[in-house]
Amino acid sequence: MKYKRNERIGALAFILTNNPNKIFTYSYFTEKLDAAKSTISEDIVIVKELIEKLDSGSIMTIPGASGGVKYIPKLSAEEEKEFLCEISEKLSNPERIIVGKFVFMTDLIYSPDITDRIGKIFASRFTDEDIDYVVTIETKGIPMASMTAKALNRPLVVIRKEIKITEGATVNIKYMSKSTGTIQSLSLSRNSMKENSRVLVIDDFMRGGGTIDGIKSIMKEFKSEVVGIGVLISKCSDELKETNKVKSLLELKEIDDDKNILKIVPSE
Amino acid sequence: MKYKRNERIGALAFILTNNPNKIFTYSYFTEKLDAAKSTISEDIVIVKELIEKLDSGSIMTIPGASGGVKYIPKLSAEEEKEFLCEISEKLSNPERIIVGKFVFMTDLIYSPDITDRIGKIFASRFTDEDIDYVVTIETKGIPMASMTAKALNRPLVVIRKEIKITEGATVNIKYMSKSTGTIQSLSLSRNSMKENSRVLVIDDFMRGGGTIDGIKSIMKEFKSEVVGIGVLISKCSDELKETNKVKSLLELKEIDDDKNILKIVPSE
Repeated sequence: MKYKRNERIGALAFILTNNPNKIFTYSYFTEKLDAAKSTISEDIVIVKELIEKLDSGSIMTIPGASGGVKYIPKLSAEEEKEFLCEISEKLSNPERIIVGKFVFMTDLIYSPDITDRIGKIFASRFTDEDIDYVVTIETKGIPMASMTAKALNRPLVVIRKEIKITEGATVNIKYMSKSTGTIQSLSLSRNSMKENSRVLVIDDFMRGGGTIDGIKSIMKEFKSEVVGIGVLISKCSDELKETNKVKSLLELKEIDDDKNILKIVPSE
Repeated sequence: MKYKRNERIGALAFILTNNPNKIFTYSYFTEKLDAAKSTISEDIVIVKELIEKLDSGSIMTIPGASGGVKYIPKLSAEEEKEFLCEISEKLSNPERIIVGKFVFMTDLIYSPDITDRIGKIFASRFTDEDIDYVVTIETKGIPMASMTAKALNRPLVVIRKEIKITEGATVNIKYMSKSTGTIQSLSLSRNSMKENSRVLVIDDFMRGGGTIDGIKSIMKEFKSEVVGIGVLISKCSDELKETNKVKSLLELKEIDDDKNILKIVPSE
């Protein structure tokens, strides 16, 4: 089927946006859009400039035989700032305080328009880390980790808290939760990931860092390295964050049930 | 900022694709793309025809004061067929059999390029059902349910198997698993959804239907109705599926550890 130039631009924007971080060869497009390679090259330049004009990521062209073109997603600076302010405000409602210590947030962190944007933000923060897998622990971080994996075009790995029959042979470890003082279990299927991988960990909340230590130790069993950690909300020292290469989007500054105060703000 | 026609077509395709089932007003686009309403109308007609030409869903224009335009995602017939065949083939590897009865599939059903397509297929199957929430049970169905929720632009609700402190006040029920004969628990935060809602349930596997009964009974506590059920793989009677308005993408036809046979095929 023949496409006019403005249709080709629309089709390229459509296909690239739908498949972030996936490399498409020029021949894929010449065939799909029935156009010469030189024509497609010109079209891609237009799409590249357009995405920059919209401040919504970038189009990268990869030279060479295995080369092609891919879309790297990113929220515009303005959209990211507005989004983080908006979600901080919603989360800072004192009615969300649970037993003086926890914040009710599943209504927000499962919502796809929120997780989609969180995923794009995390993907853009860790885009240079050469990630092989996005790893999370069940349950609350799974939707945002799914969207991060989609934005990075990398497989998702979900660590279970119990040994499950449907996971087959598993690797299991125990660790101490620093915030509750209890022993926790982690379990991961032997077949869930390849060894010698670079992983990005995504989670909804970070406090004492015990879970992070647990994840690192189970990753060691897969000879794999945690090269970055993205958390939505952190309540821990800057030192702990630096040591663990943690990037958090929001900070829990204050939570006090008696005084009815809950203060969550965007990270600096 | 001024945009040329082919840039506007690209921008419209980009924005609409990134936000499936979200209604954008014409004024949003006239402002964003600095163009007259009549110009944007013409551009949208071009994008509409383009999406049809690509057989990748449709652009719907909603008339009236609260009107606008939205993108309804759908895989092309050919892409959907190829995808379901490909995933059936991958799942039918007898090495995936676990203790004679279960299928190891987390490596596939967490992969974002697979869950993204599953989400779009489910969204297109239930697009006329006027869904308020996409509901799933932890853990394995969450990534595909997230993507379905994204494609339908509806909030996701995740039912937990245990009562969790971070969920606040919860509604809890017990049910009997028909396939294992054990008592199971379901728990859902009071604040997770509004009453009188129409919900679409998404899950990875359906056997005896006990879980479906459990979900229906917890939904009744929210005065809400299950208007459709989308499962990736089913192994149950057509009658059970019809009674429960179940649409399954794949069928588990045969599983036999001794004979080394695993047969999963696309549903008819």
